[in-house]
Amino acid sequence: MADITRRIHLVNVGLEGFFHEIREQGTPAVHVDWRPPASGDVALMRKIAALRGPAVEKANAETVARIKAGRPVWVDVQPAAEAIYGMERNVLLHSGPPIDFFDMCDPQQRAVEAAAIFEGWATDRAGLAARLKRGDIRLLPNYVLGSVGAMCGVISPSMPVVVTENVTRGNRSWTTFNEGKGAVIWMGAYNEETFRRLRWMRDVLAPGLRAALRATDEGIDIFPIIAEGVLMGDEVHARSAACTLLLLRRLTPLLLAADVGREAIREIVEFIGRNNHSFLSLTLTACKTVADAAHGLPGSTVVTAMSRNGVDFALRVGGMDAWFIAPTAPMDEAIYYSGYGPEDAAGDIGDSAIVETVGLGGMIIGAAPSISSFVGGSMRHSRRAMSAMRSVCAGENPAFAPGSVDFMPAPVGIDIRQVVRLGVSPIIDTGVLHKRSGVGQIGTGIARAPLEAFRKALAAMPLPQEN
Amino acid sequence: MADITRRIHLVNVGLEGFFHEIREQGTPAVHVDWRPPASGDVALMRKIAALRGPAVEKANAETVARIKAGRPVWVDVQPAAEAIYGMERNVLLHSGPPIDFFDMCDPQQRAVEAAAIFEGWATDRAGLAARLKRGDIRLLPNYVLGSVGAMCGVISPSMPVVVTENVTRGNRSWTTFNEGKGAVIWMGAYNEETFRRLRWMRDVLAPGLRAALRATDEGIDIFPIIAEGVLMGDEVHARSAACTLLLLRRLTPLLLAADVGREAIREIVEFIGRNNHSFLSLTLTACKTVADAAHGLPGSTVVTAMSRNGVDFALRVGGMDAWFIAPTAPMDEAIYYSGYGPEDAAGDIGDSAIVETVGLGGMIIGAAPSISSFVGGSMRHSRRAMSAMRSVCAGENPAFAPGSVDFMPAPVGIDIRQVVRLGVSPIIDTGVLHKRSGVGQIGTGIARAPLEAFRKALAAMPLPQEN
Repeated sequence: MADITRRIHLVNVGLEGFFHEIREQGTPAVHVDWRPPASGDVALMRKIAALRGPAVEKANAETVARIKAGRPVWVDVQPAAEAIYGMERNVLLHSGPPIDFFDMCDPQQRAVEAAAIFEGWATDRAGLAARLKRGDIRLLPNYVLGSVGAMCGVISPSMPVVVTENVTRGNRSWTTFNEGKGAVIWMGAYNEETFRRLRWMRDVLAPGLRAALRATDEGIDIFPIIAEGVLMGDEVHARSAACTLLLLRRLTPLLLAADVGREAIREIVEFIGRNNHSFLSLTLTACKTVADAAHGLPGSTVVTAMSRNGVDFALRVGGMDAWFIAPTAPMDEAIYYSGYGPEDAAGDIGDSAIVETVGLGGMIIGAAPSISSFVGGSMRHSRRAMSAMRSVCAGENPAFAPGSVDFMPAPVGIDIRQVVRLGVSPIIDTGVLHKRSGVGQIGTGIARAPLEAFRKALAAMPLPQEN
Repeated sequence: MADITRRIHLVNVGLEGFFHEIREQGTPAVHVDWRPPASGDVALMRKIAALRGPAVEKANAETVARIKAGRPVWVDVQPAAEAIYGMERNVLLHSGPPIDFFDMCDPQQRAVEAAAIFEGWATDRAGLAARLKRGDIRLLPNYVLGSVGAMCGVISPSMPVVVTENVTRGNRSWTTFNEGKGAVIWMGAYNEETFRRLRWMRDVLAPGLRAALRATDEGIDIFPIIAEGVLMGDEVHARSAACTLLLLRRLTPLLLAADVGREAIREIVEFIGRNNHSFLSLTLTACKTVADAAHGLPGSTVVTAMSRNGVDFALRVGGMDAWFIAPTAPMDEAIYYSGYGPEDAAGDIGDSAIVETVGLGGMIIGAAPSISSFVGGSMRHSRRAMSAMRSVCAGENPAFAPGSVDFMPAPVGIDIRQVVRLGVSPIIDTGVLHKRSGVGQIGTGIARAPLEAFRKALAAMPLPQEN
């Protein structure tokens, strides 16, 4: 028989302060992180209750099913204006919701400038401003045309874009190649080297890749590569090192079989190989085609897009065509390059949160132990973060199951009802840009999608007939 | 105040049977896996006590330091007889300790046959047997010449071998290329395709890689690739998928810069890329050069080689030149290809346990979630297995630190005192061969190094003067 001494055990619910005080006094205590549903907003709680029922569940299940059924294939490389349906010759596309040039954050303004210079439309900001004012040049969010842009997300008509088709439904998306490190338009930085690189991408990289893709009938299936990369340390938003290597393995024999010069092949494989994020362009377009194919089911409360421009965050939900806008969130946790800190960071930016929208990136943060520090620093924390994401998602996707968290399936299909009810906002893995110096990227971290956008969407959500 | 009910809690020490019985009755119980030190062998316990003290600790620390200081570089590709110091033109090398042809396990016999046929020395087993008997052909363990061979480990004079040099101490090791899947000599299987492949490896692969290596002055540093691979799901014995991709990234530009035909390059990158174990040849030679450089410190009780031929297991310890032999262990846990099971398995085989000898493979099983099933099925089990390995090792190596177990450093330097005292035997990741059918590999799993070899070595260990 064991001799059991009577001891005080304490369960603390709600305010965390009490718990820490008691623990410091040496009393065993457990904290329950309880918050009132929907932050105590009675109207939203009623709306959530009204949105219960088979109609919404069915629409959500179908949204998730369409995301999971997607089969995005990289099929071509073309100049943006030829590839992107409806892109006119005077349009500059950008990430996030609509915004005037002068309201853009500094890095996005610089990216627009660089693109205008690359197109020969301006030589400086004053010239650009005048042409924008006259309407010679038009700014348009990527999401209006179905394209997608990482970080500043600027696409101009003569930039080459990857063309990805979701063969399940035939819809396409496009984005520019990742330019790599340094002064790059993606990150809102440019110098002479930026333009040299862009010309090389247009004149050597793009034709080479195009020829390689034509050497195969079926194009390059993107999700099988991601599924393998997820078993090799990639969550495919902050880290795409394995996927980039897997892509190289697939591409190299195609390049060698195609009519591409030997020196061009060497340059292309070195360019792709030296940047661990090279694969990201394929991930972005793949996720976008899949999310778009899942959009438009009446009654669906599942998110089908999240998009930020450094100033505003935009949310789209499956059952509605409107975009719901809220101020973009600050960085949550980030690692800054030496010499920089949170006070230097621009707001969260990029269309790349489409990755989290379909259950990758921050949703499977446990796939990338190298970034566990953003959620606490250990695999236990990463696992807990994934469980939290699971609690706001409508389903899971065993096709993407990181081994490092015992093959826990990816949470997929962010349900705005759950986000608002639990007050748990999706984790978005992202780069961090300098807010004004023009140095480009200064770190990597996570942002939280602003709850306000989810509350607005929930409030606007029509009740299904059957409920 | 909490209301605490009196309950029986039980701690069971030693025999596990009691524990399971009590647990089944619903009583909370904890099992302590206690075993008497050195299995209760008094002489060995005294020997362990006598081997305590600064002389042994210093020798062990230096052994571990030399393992960690190793910098193995892939420098060349050459025919075996030209590359391997002291290899005569009539020698066939094999894995594991010395053994007569007719005592070899069936797959190793087949591998020897295939090599003799490839060299044009025989056309069948009868002819081979006659020449072996006459002494025209000599069999020699790889470890006699410092070469190393995976699985059957057969190397014949005209097979090309990778040449790896540990630049820290200038010593070299050699092995054949991984042939890939199917009927391959590594796995003791052959048919017409095997010889076609071997000729292609000799005539296309080897000259191509040799030219590529000459396109770089410094060769290819192997451990930095392994360090990166360990962060991407490889424990580099059972799984080398990431390392193989990292190698391709490094190799492709070199091939393109060298005087190698375009079609040959395409064949080479496809050959390497299609086999996730292609990198293993580099790992084996790298580990061998490092272990050899760490060998020979008087007083060291740290293991410097483990080698098996499917019948016998051989152990070498830093402070002694003798090899200690014991019967090879059966497979511990394995996953078999469909249609096969434990009753079909040959004994544990290969010089590849040199990987575990220097703190990789089974020592860092947590790096490869895909094989966690061999030690229990979850990352928790893999973590526990690594802790167990740490308990029998003299040090750790933060250069190889798998992210999936929170960057736990690799346990390195197996100390025979600890192995015998605790009765915990090193985990060796390995392939499983069919014991007689000639089909080659039938699974993957882990074997345990036989404790008997460690006991013999410990008994033979001379006491240092200072103790």
